[in-house]
Order: sequence, then structure tokens, then C-alpha cells
Amino acid sequence: MGETHKPDTQSNTDKTVISVDAMGGDSGVAAIIGGMAKFASKNPDVRFIVNGDAAQISKCLKRRPALAAQCEINATEQVISMDEKPSTALRGGKKSSMWATIDAVKTGAAKAAVSCGNTGALMAMSVVRLRKAPGVDRPAIAILWPSANPQKHNIMLDVGADIKADAHDLLKYAIMGASYARNGMNLACPRVGLLNVGTEEFKGRPELHEAAKLIDTVARTSDFEYVGYVEGSDIPSNRVDVIVTDGFTGNVALKTGEGTAKHVSNLLKRAFSHTPLSRIGALFAMTSLRRLSKRIDPRRVNGGVFLGLNGIVVKSHGGADATGVAAAIKLAHQLAQNDFSEKLTARVASGLAASKDALSTNNEA
Amino acid sequence: MGETHKPDTQSNTDKTVISVDAMGGDSGVAAIIGGMAKFASKNPDVRFIVNGDAAQISKCLKRRPALAAQCEINATEQVISMDEKPSTALRGGKKSSMWATIDAVKTGAAKAAVSCGNTGALMAMSVVRLRKAPGVDRPAIAILWPSANPQKHNIMLDVGADIKADAHDLLKYAIMGASYARNGMNLACPRVGLLNVGTEEFKGRPELHEAAKLIDTVARTSDFEYVGYVEGSDIPSNRVDVIVTDGFTGNVALKTGEGTAKHVSNLLKRAFSHTPLSRIGALFAMTSLRRLSKRIDPRRVNGGVFLGLNGIVVKSHGGADATGVAAAIKLAHQLAQNDFSEKLTARVASGLAASKDALSTNNEA
Repeated sequence: MGETHKPDTQSNTDKTVISVDAMGGDSGVAAIIGGMAKFASKNPDVRFIVNGDAAQISKCLKRRPALAAQCEINATEQVISMDEKPSTALRGGKKSSMWATIDAVKTGAAKAAVSCGNTGALMAMSVVRLRKAPGVDRPAIAILWPSANPQKHNIMLDVGADIKADAHDLLKYAIMGASYARNGMNLACPRVGLLNVGTEEFKGRPELHEAAKLIDTVARTSDFEYVGYVEGSDIPSNRVDVIVTDGFTGNVALKTGEGTAKHVSNLLKRAFSHTPLSRIGALFAMTSLRRLSKRIDPRRVNGGVFLGLNGIVVKSHGGADATGVAAAIKLAHQLAQNDFSEKLTARVASGLAASKDALSTNNEA
Repeated sequence: MGETHKPDTQSNTDKTVISVDAMGGDSGVAAIIGGMAKFASKNPDVRFIVNGDAAQISKCLKRRPALAAQCEINATEQVISMDEKPSTALRGGKKSSMWATIDAVKTGAAKAAVSCGNTGALMAMSVVRLRKAPGVDRPAIAILWPSANPQKHNIMLDVGADIKADAHDLLKYAIMGASYARNGMNLACPRVGLLNVGTEEFKGRPELHEAAKLIDTVARTSDFEYVGYVEGSDIPSNRVDVIVTDGFTGNVALKTGEGTAKHVSNLLKRAFSHTPLSRIGALFAMTSLRRLSKRIDPRRVNGGVFLGLNGIVVKSHGGADATGVAAAIKLAHQLAQNDFSEKLTARVASGLAASKDALSTNNEA
């Protein structure tokens, strides 16, 4: 651990500590420190362990004395690049800022880790260092999706931790996603749907039919509702709160949604600058348009949560600016304060017990 | 074949005949006849075979004498419902309007078939009646996607003909998609990409790695370019013209894109009616907003083309109104005039020969 800006540990005993990877991401250290500052300005009690190049971090913190007092710098020399293969990063990256960021959660120095870096490498290191929660074979990445729900977002998982998932993995995604909805969105009984190419029972792949039965069975004795198959068009809808899918499909859906929203926004901007009249129109509608762009701004829902590990890890978008980083930190902080990791582990254990009971009852019957 | 409105075949020898399923779709016969009228008003030479309930069709045509003169009614009694299982429809649906619509292409009475009905049933009947083109194991459904391309649309396939595809199927999708881009969009050398969870070579499923090698090999001796892996965010981009994927992923991506665009449009509408000022803004910007909504209106790019069959079949959206049906008919007409089906078959044959040559050369080397 570095020496600069070390906070007085005596007085900080009850404060939530977030471990931040200052080196991941495309926008550089300044964007990450900027995001920390944004969050800290509204949460003066939070403490940070900032992992990365000490000189660069100190330079950014020099201009922010209030934030600096909340930070402990952990100097690391190595940086994992965005296009590095996860296996390579894992073998040679033990002195990296990313490794150190996760390590702080492992040792208990921090309650949650946040990184904008290489997703595959971050997941690989998190699995090795924090280990999978009991009963989980495939951890998942869950994201928030702007929707017509009262809470304005749905949860979708997995969006890319793994490229495949069998029926039992999908069941665990359902349990973990429901737990995330309870702790991240305060939903008492989240509605869970399974992503498929149609809502009819006979549609889709065999593992989906098996998963549907498992999830339906567990839902009966748990506090979530299974709504059946949902389609791509339901992801931003109010039919469902948690959308369960394999990481390949989820990743394509996520990026397709982002790409479509961006394409529509670009066309909208062009439409408003097309004629003098439309430019006047944009002026009149400015506040409403700002509200809209805030509503669909992906930076404000930035943060993929790694589910199924013994510890909280939040992956921020690689290209996140200060607003995006602040959103990811906010999410990590909220989950840390809820003791989410422990609750999730308990949920998975009881869900698996319920599914085993149900399956053995079915077999006996 | 029915007797009403039978056109004088002598004078129509060179005219393109489209076979239309009047009973498929959620909007009823009137929407379909309305779509035919829209298209026919700009294409007075087109002829239609209209398959379905003769009384309903005649009633709709009575008010449109000009269109009626271009139509031949083929009376059928049976209707395939939207939620019927494809296998059931196939077994019991030989007297349906859908079957008759495809049959007209099989017998040579029409050059192309258009239906708004049950996609699975339409594909199953098309395969049975028209047969797969030589070398094609899995036919595909290709759609147009609004994009930042000069031609304003990309092609994506498969979007749901089948829920899986191996490397060789994906190769044939690439060849068929490129052929569609040439005949449907007049692109001399379309850019083909393979949908994956990242652009790095090591990402994704094993069958994608194998497909990437096959497509790259065939592209070298064909008139399309292989641009490598593309992500969901590239679907509406100018990086690619043809996006190749399996039918499960493609279907989810398509519906996710539609759902996202609809959600953003709804938020936009709400933003503009939120305050008196924003309502004034909307008035000023009205023409520009109309242009935008025309640009992203899914009705105007309505029509999934079935590729890999001995004949042209276009599936219109089930909920299509007259504008949507007209777009699907326009697409079928264009492909029929280009002798697309014959060209596609030739392309697949030469593409497969090229891939066999390349593979045997590689094995000999």
C-alpha cells in the first residue's frame, strides 16, 4: 500500500471503502478520479483505495484536496490493456492495478471493487481471487436496461461473463438476478423472464425448455415471480424486471440496444439541425429533450455487476467519463451497504435447495 | 383457381405476377388489399393472385376497380392461425390460403409469394413445397436494418428460420446475404461481417471461429468482402452491409432493436408533450421529426426474405398495415424482376465449389 494521503484509519472504522482501478478504461486516470469526486461530493463518508500509477493519481488528487483526504493510494506498476487475452492477463498480471483492486476486496480492506478495464481479464481475476459462491458454476454479469418499468430499468444477465449457459446456470442467473433486483431496486417480488425467440412454449432451444421448468419450480417457493419466455422486444418493457439469458445472446442484445439507441439519437440530432425552423423547435423543446437524453443516457446506468462471486465487483464501461464512473461507484456503494454479496450467496443456497427438493419430489411422485 | 376478376392472360405474358396470402396477418384482409392497392397505383403492370376467402376479398376489391382488374382471386377456405405450431400447420394446412400462396410460385403461376402469416408455418410450407436450393441445409430469413450506410440499411440473416447454425450454414448465409445485397441493394462488393461478442479473434463460440475461416476463404475468390467479427453495436453502423448470425441470436437482436427504437420513440413523444414550450417546439420541428420517423419507421422496411429456397417468398410483419404490406410487395416484386432466386442458387453453387477447392488445396499443401 502507498503512503500518500493515507486516511486516519481510527476514525473511519464504519465507513464503506471502495477499491477503484485507476488505470483501466479508455479515458485515463483523470476521468476515473473525476467520477470519484462526483460521487464523493454527495457522499462525504465514503473512502477509496485507489490502485494504479501513484504519480498520475497524486497529480489528479492534488487539485481535489477534499477527495484526497478520502483516498488511500495503492501504488502499482503494471496495467492490463483492453485487448489482452484474459488467460494472458491472469498469468502475467499479478502486479497490475486490476489485480490489486480486486485483492483489496479479498483481504477485506474494501467492500467493493470498481474497474473500467478489460472485462474478460477482470472476470478471470475476480474468479481466481474471490472464488465462486457455493453452488455457482458460471458467474454472470448483470446490467440495468432503460425500460418502461416504474423503476425505469430492467436487469439483464448474463451479458458476457461466459458465452454459454446450461439450464442449471440459467436457474442460478434467475435466482441471482432476483436477488439483485431486491437489493439494487428494492423490488419485493421481482418478475423474472427467460429470453427466447417467442413466447410460445414449444419455441427455442432445449436447454431453455429445461430451464423454464426449473425456474418455475423454484419461483413457487421463493419471493420472485416467473413470467415465462420473453422476447427481445420485451427487454425495455414493463412485462418483466429480470431478463435471464446466456452471455452470448445477452451481450449481442446489449450492444444491439446501445447501437440502436445511438443511431436513433444521431438521426434525431440531425433532424433538429436540418432546417432553421427545426433549430428553433429544438430551442423551445430544449428542457424536454434534455430530460429525454438524461433518461436514455447509457452513462447514467453504467455498471455491470459480477454476480456469483464472494465479493462485489462492478465493471464500468471502458469508455466511461466522470459521470459514468460516478454511476458505477454509486452502484458498488449501494450494494456494499446492503451486504449484497452475503445475501446473494444465501439466496443461491436456498434456491438450489428448493430446486433439489422439488426435483426429488417430482421423481418420487 | 377462382373465377372472379380473372385477367386476360394473353396480354399479360411478360408481367410479373405476385401471389399474396390475403388471410395471414393481424390487421385483416382490408390491410392486405390496401397494401396491394398502394403498390399497384405506382406499378400498373403488376398482376396479383390473391389467395383466401373469396367473399371477403371480392368485397374489398369492389371499391377498387383498377386494382381488381389486376387481380385473380384464388378461393381457399382454411386459414393458418398465428400461434399454430409449424408441424401442425404443415400436416393439416394443405387447403389453406398460405399453402395456395406458395403453391402459385411452385407451379410457375407467380414469380414471388408474400404472406403476413405465421412465420414458422410459412417457412415449413415453403421448404416442403419449393424445396431447398442445392447445397443449402438451413434456409434463412434475411431482413433490412436501418443503418448509417449510404444505402440506409444493412441486411441481417438468419433472424429466425432456425434456432441454430453450424459453420457451414453460416458460410452459406454469408454467400446468400451477399447475393441479396447485390440484387436488393445494387451493391457490387458487399461487406460481410460475422456477429460475435467482440471483434478479437479469440472471442466467441468455436463454430464462429470455423465459420470465420470458411467465409474469409470464399470471399477471396468471390465478389464480397469479409470484414471479420462485428458486434451488436455494428448492426446499425457503416462498417458492414451483411451481418451473418444464427437464427436464435438474430431473432433476439432484431426484436431488441425494434423494442429499443420503440421505447426511445415513446419517450420522445412524451418529452414533446411534457410542457407547453416543448409542444411549441414540436410544431416548429414537425417536418424534421416526420422525416426522422419515416427514416426509422419499421413499416417501410417491412419484409423478411426467405433465402435458400427454389423460389421467392417474402414474410411481411404480422401486424403490418397497408404501408407495411406495400413495402413487402415492393421487395418481392424487385427480387422477382431480378430473377433473384436463380442468381442466388448459382451463387451458392459457385461459393460452395470455391470453399471445397480452397479446403482441398489447404489439405494438400
